[in-house]
Amino acid sequence: MRLSQFFLPTLKENPAEAQIASHRLMLRAGMIRQQSAGIYTWLPLGLRVLRKVEAIVREEQNRAGVVELLMPTIQSADLWRESGRYDDYGKEMLRITDRHERELLYGPTNEEMLTDIVRTFVKSYKQLPLNLYHIQWKFRDEVRPRFGVMRGREFLMKDAYSFDLDEASARVSYNKQFLAYLRTYARLGLKAIPMKADTGPIGGDLSHEFIILAETGESQVFCDKDWLDLDVLDKAPKSAEELQSFVDWATGFYAATEEKHDPNAVPIPADRLHSARGIEVGHIFYFGEKYSKPMNATITLADGSTTPMHMGSYGVGVSRLLGAIIEASHDEAGIIWPEAVAPYHVGIITMKAGDAASDAKAQEIYAALTAKGIDVLYDDRDERAGVKFADLDLIGLPWQIIIGPRGLEKGVVEVKNRRTGQRDELSVTDALARVGA
Amino acid sequence: MRLSQFFLPTLKENPAEAQIASHRLMLRAGMIRQQSAGIYTWLPLGLRVLRKVEAIVREEQNRAGVVELLMPTIQSADLWRESGRYDDYGKEMLRITDRHERELLYGPTNEEMLTDIVRTFVKSYKQLPLNLYHIQWKFRDEVRPRFGVMRGREFLMKDAYSFDLDEASARVSYNKQFLAYLRTYARLGLKAIPMKADTGPIGGDLSHEFIILAETGESQVFCDKDWLDLDVLDKAPKSAEELQSFVDWATGFYAATEEKHDPNAVPIPADRLHSARGIEVGHIFYFGEKYSKPMNATITLADGSTTPMHMGSYGVGVSRLLGAIIEASHDEAGIIWPEAVAPYHVGIITMKAGDAASDAKAQEIYAALTAKGIDVLYDDRDERAGVKFADLDLIGLPWQIIIGPRGLEKGVVEVKNRRTGQRDELSVTDALARVGA
Repeated sequence: MRLSQFFLPTLKENPAEAQIASHRLMLRAGMIRQQSAGIYTWLPLGLRVLRKVEAIVREEQNRAGVVELLMPTIQSADLWRESGRYDDYGKEMLRITDRHERELLYGPTNEEMLTDIVRTFVKSYKQLPLNLYHIQWKFRDEVRPRFGVMRGREFLMKDAYSFDLDEASARVSYNKQFLAYLRTYARLGLKAIPMKADTGPIGGDLSHEFIILAETGESQVFCDKDWLDLDVLDKAPKSAEELQSFVDWATGFYAATEEKHDPNAVPIPADRLHSARGIEVGHIFYFGEKYSKPMNATITLADGSTTPMHMGSYGVGVSRLLGAIIEASHDEAGIIWPEAVAPYHVGIITMKAGDAASDAKAQEIYAALTAKGIDVLYDDRDERAGVKFADLDLIGLPWQIIIGPRGLEKGVVEVKNRRTGQRDELSVTDALARVGA
Repeated sequence: MRLSQFFLPTLKENPAEAQIASHRLMLRAGMIRQQSAGIYTWLPLGLRVLRKVEAIVREEQNRAGVVELLMPTIQSADLWRESGRYDDYGKEMLRITDRHERELLYGPTNEEMLTDIVRTFVKSYKQLPLNLYHIQWKFRDEVRPRFGVMRGREFLMKDAYSFDLDEASARVSYNKQFLAYLRTYARLGLKAIPMKADTGPIGGDLSHEFIILAETGESQVFCDKDWLDLDVLDKAPKSAEELQSFVDWATGFYAATEEKHDPNAVPIPADRLHSARGIEVGHIFYFGEKYSKPMNATITLADGSTTPMHMGSYGVGVSRLLGAIIEASHDEAGIIWPEAVAPYHVGIITMKAGDAASDAKAQEIYAALTAKGIDVLYDDRDERAGVKFADLDLIGLPWQIIIGPRGLEKGVVEVKNRRTGQRDELSVTDALARVGA
């Protein structure tokens, strides 16, 4: 993409309303724009990252055998009356009345709706287990939306739901999601720590939160340093038989939120105990018959008797993950994207606007990278080099290729790694190889 | 995908509420389920087609140089007061009040919101032209939602907006979209006819509707048979210079809605005049300063003076297109998907459940097709062959591979083309080649 044909409204000043790094940087990098409190437009650069994060979440759900569908944003109030949550949910639920005075709401989650779908179509134990997910916009009318996409009102969530015959089978569904979540975070470049959690208003008796560490985290957490040092993708089970032992192993590491941490009862040596601020990036629940019973979502067993299905739900805030990634990966100059979710892999800058040799070399490199299927952003604007450098650091692409007349005389361009800051003067061939072409 | 691991709740009976073929077939094929009047869940099969249609729409917008962003579903009422449309829009607008008594609405379209974004960031003529689009859920509170996704309340729309310096430049943006629309329909397997249209409540003085022909169309239309016989992709311009002459050529064919058609003033020979029912599948508008003037979206020219931007908007109902495609392409047995949007390219059926040789051959073919990157649905359910045949015809995959013990003895499988109905007994190698592997 040529920047002159893109829409990248970066800001030079820090926006006053942004209290945390990710909010500030997403506004400054031209990724988002607030439309109303807690409601954002995803500008083109932000949308590119959102789609990459969403794609990784989707791939890991599909790998776990979860099937995608898409439920609407607007729901009927009646379903929520059936489960008993319509009144419980309080003011966070955005309630709507249509032209025929029917009571609707903007879905904050989908336990009721999917239970209704499944009870309609699934009658026999032979149709279970059934694991379904969708990635859809949700709305929660937070009393005080803040921190940008970290606590917005309209947000993109992946929510999955499992329907099983009994608790043993439900635990397998739960374990598959547990693994899918760890794989997802690892691919996003995040070190996520599973922590046993209270189930809260969702109900049920088995639940884990996934927490990443970042200075601006919302709560203090404690964990085993050993967990932080290992690569969970290396340890992922190779077969269904290994799944339970993997989950046992992963949940065997010490990890606790502040409320649950008892300094006098830590089961690991003091030098392995790590304490830091944490951000919640996902939450999974097994809650048995909590919804299937009141909503009469039953199945017929082989002997002709009926029983409520056993359910779980598995949520991850896809839009929130962008904020979490930035909180965990930025510096003074801007964002530092993990390669897997960077909006572009390489940025190209010419130092001297109007220098024909530089422009020609930039075009040549742009074409070579594009031909290899590498996402490139070529800053072809008529701007000072200083402005271009600042913008490229701000938007945080993994690699920069910088082209100037002096380098070209020597037959080299400069390649900069955004994360390490390392700069090298390389021939074009070596520069292309360095950035992976 | 193995059907036993998918979620495909097909219906044997025709649903009473469905008046037209696409609505009936989408319900029966397990593509959609109604949640409330005009509000649907996209079940896994339906979602696959929706995403394929969406991808083609997106590719053609990107090809036209239009840049994607994503605006939220919920908008502030204030913006609509600025443009003067808040009161005009009437009961079709779903109006919402949040917990702080702020007036919001579920966006039925985005002229106001994007004008607000662009006036914030775009100040200089150097930043124009600017062409942006998004693909987002919209809500229109139809008084009587019907015809399934053809006239739903919550629907997926691609809406693009152009911002230009003057009318001449705006016409280039308009022409690019005109071409993008024709390319999109052609790739979707639809014969779309551009018809000069009234601009209605959007305003402005240049507008085209795109109409496809189908028996169940909502209105009578007239067109030149020659247009229906040609392949518009063949005629697409190869360069920017050819764009205007292409548009002139394409709009030179006679085409008129019933209201505009005067039987006494038809400029083509009677034997070239074709009359049929039509369905609107897209609408594009140039409306100049209609929104930029009241909303003060101005730019500074080289001489320091300011002028309102010239705008256009370009809408296509992505979810509605699925209904239109089915209306144009089905038979008594079910849907007949154009290859470009089929949920799977091939379906595999074994005639005799539990026959080990058939199962092994099905697995072999499934693996071979999957390895080639071809989307396959393998019906591995423990069902009678008749049920499987009916379901496969109903869901309309382009190709069926049917495996039975008698064929295997002869070393052949049967390959059926869903559109032509042609069946051939072929060796596995030839069968794979026939379906494109």
